Amino acid sequence: MQKMFMNSIGIVTPQSLFFKEPLALQSGASLSDYTLVYETYGTLNADRSNAVLVCHALNASHHVAGTYEGQARSQGWWDNMVGPGKALDTNRFFVIGVNNLGSCFGSTGPMHTNPATGKPYGAAFPVVTVEDWVHAQARLADALGIQQLAAVMGGSLGGMQAMAWSMLYPERVRHCLVIASTPKLSAQNIAFNDVARQAILTDPDYHAGDFYAHGVVPKNGLRVARMIGHITYLSDDDMAEKFGRDLRGTDYQFGYGVDFEIESYLRYQGDKFSEYFDANTYLLITKALDYFDPARAHNGDLAVALANTQAEFLLVSFTTDWRFAPERSREIVQALVKNNRKVSYAEIDAPHGHDAFLLDDHRYMAVVSSYYDKVWQQIQTQFHATPQATHREAA
Amino acid sequence: MQKMFMNSIGIVTPQSLFFKEPLALQSGASLSDYTLVYETYGTLNADRSNAVLVCHALNASHHVAGTYEGQARSQGWWDNMVGPGKALDTNRFFVIGVNNLGSCFGSTGPMHTNPATGKPYGAAFPVVTVEDWVHAQARLADALGIQQLAAVMGGSLGGMQAMAWSMLYPERVRHCLVIASTPKLSAQNIAFNDVARQAILTDPDYHAGDFYAHGVVPKNGLRVARMIGHITYLSDDDMAEKFGRDLRGTDYQFGYGVDFEIESYLRYQGDKFSEYFDANTYLLITKALDYFDPARAHNGDLAVALANTQAEFLLVSFTTDWRFAPERSREIVQALVKNNRKVSYAEIDAPHGHDAFLLDDHRYMAVVSSYYDKVWQQIQTQFHATPQATHREAA
Repeated sequence: MQKMFMNSIGIVTPQSLFFKEPLALQSGASLSDYTLVYETYGTLNADRSNAVLVCHALNASHHVAGTYEGQARSQGWWDNMVGPGKALDTNRFFVIGVNNLGSCFGSTGPMHTNPATGKPYGAAFPVVTVEDWVHAQARLADALGIQQLAAVMGGSLGGMQAMAWSMLYPERVRHCLVIASTPKLSAQNIAFNDVARQAILTDPDYHAGDFYAHGVVPKNGLRVARMIGHITYLSDDDMAEKFGRDLRGTDYQFGYGVDFEIESYLRYQGDKFSEYFDANTYLLITKALDYFDPARAHNGDLAVALANTQAEFLLVSFTTDWRFAPERSREIVQALVKNNRKVSYAEIDAPHGHDAFLLDDHRYMAVVSSYYDKVWQQIQTQFHATPQATHREAA
Repeated sequence: MQKMFMNSIGIVTPQSLFFKEPLALQSGASLSDYTLVYETYGTLNADRSNAVLVCHALNASHHVAGTYEGQARSQGWWDNMVGPGKALDTNRFFVIGVNNLGSCFGSTGPMHTNPATGKPYGAAFPVVTVEDWVHAQARLADALGIQQLAAVMGGSLGGMQAMAWSMLYPERVRHCLVIASTPKLSAQNIAFNDVARQAILTDPDYHAGDFYAHGVVPKNGLRVARMIGHITYLSDDDMAEKFGRDLRGTDYQFGYGVDFEIESYLRYQGDKFSEYFDANTYLLITKALDYFDPARAHNGDLAVALANTQAEFLLVSFTTDWRFAPERSREIVQALVKNNRKVSYAEIDAPHGHDAFLLDDHRYMAVVSSYYDKVWQQIQTQFHATPQATHREAA
């Protein structure tokens, strides 16, 4: 059957769940009275065996696929991946997208009121980790009545969450899809994150995180942070291909306005980002990235960290990704192989750098698609096939 | 003869020359009443055939070698390269270091008084190019009575100046040493420069370049700019080796202070830089980097751009330099070979990234040293040997 990669899931609606019970965080702090915003696509089958959790990266959210009613250009961030007939096929799977704690897209975060003070958390919002997020996501799965996920999937920081799931809840994850990710940030990765944070923290409009009360936003800092980040998402070659040394005008301007197209593009990206993203969230999420290092508790031995996993794995990396290079994915693969885990690995020759994990590449999509075919077949044979599924297979 | 690499030239003193005649700049503007600060080491021989001009990069100056009287830790930025018995041997050569126009280390720049307004130039200091600098340097050579340079040498942005000399004054350069450089910046290079500029330009303390009048300095912007730059000077591997994920304390701090050693290092570098470097100079020098593209006037054909050169060339690159990768040096080599120029090329397997050009590496120093042996032998055979030279050879 030819899959329809063009179809979107259509209009979707976010939902939210309130959690009263305190969540103990890795920092020692705890968070109570928090809300998680999420979306689901497709139908949970009768034996609840077809749920797939999609974890988001730095600037994304629960809005993985589909569009919002009446909102033009509101496609989910992985709409090319998730939908009817797509690589992660919502005709087969019940897909969950959840916004992480500390985000600025709905789940409880720095912009929300701290019940202890009656004011926005600001910089007082606890620094959360990838593991904290996973524990919160597990509570959401509990609330949705899902004991075991067919798969957890994510790219970049989302891939770290998928990995953490396989270690923290080994019996609850059948498949783990880790895309364009890394077992830990390098010194250079941390360095870029810290410069971005410094740009925000030293922006006078940051006001030690309480900018909400001042009616301002540290836009300049956020803008620079995003520009730095954006450079690391693209490959040198891709930038050369797309922008090269193309000038905006016909000649050098001999000033500090825009000379080169790449400047115009990056400044635009920075401007746009600084208009919608929360500075405290940016700080917090980059810290979650920096802190992720599951091997740390095991003398740096990733194989030991992954020893208790039970899932099967798909790892995907992209050749021109210099942020989380293929080598970093291979470290994970090797640690899994050392544990005799079932692991598939695809290194996609794509020019788009780290961003490739969000883009259409037929080989990439084919790898993920065929992996989910396998997941689906396992469900078919190991669990009772649902009516929807039967219907689809007959179509 | 065993060279003495440990010797410094000792105490040196900067000199300055005032130029009244307007210098026509590439932008169309012109600069008159300017001063160039410079240093010289060694002795100009009788037939003035042993002069070597050393061009500086972004944050360096005329102070190439030696120390200043009574100033501890005042070594010149290439003191490991230039001195008695060193690779560029001041017992043989008359070495000139000159501070470029627009710098903040003595030559006329944004901090100086604009004769037209009686106030500091600030952002009104004309944007100068590599070629403008070379024309100014040529006037200094004129003033010193040097018609032809035995060599022009530089690393990074300094290498661009050496290259520009070979094209603008082909008959005045016998040897051209271009180290860790590039024929033009890539889109990614420009992107990093522009983010750095944006950090400065959007710092409220920048005051559109007139911060001098406000008694402030855009320290936060400069600090972030330097941190970004610094990341690009080091290799990923070198950072991993030196800092890895080493923590400052014993555990994660769950805040936005220093967690990792790399953060501490970069913040320190940023702080230090922002205390002595001028923001307008930073903007201006990064623009000179961005604009350098000698092939631009020749439909992108570097070989055509280099066709009128007469010098012999030494190109050196470093394997882990991802700012100006070996590939960029090879482009220059190929364009020179296409022109049947004499060119030597060394690709040094060094772990230190772009910064390697400033560091001691015995293979690197040996390459430069033996190249200068050749330059020296040519002087010996083609020109009259000076008494000093004879003396040294007999030593």
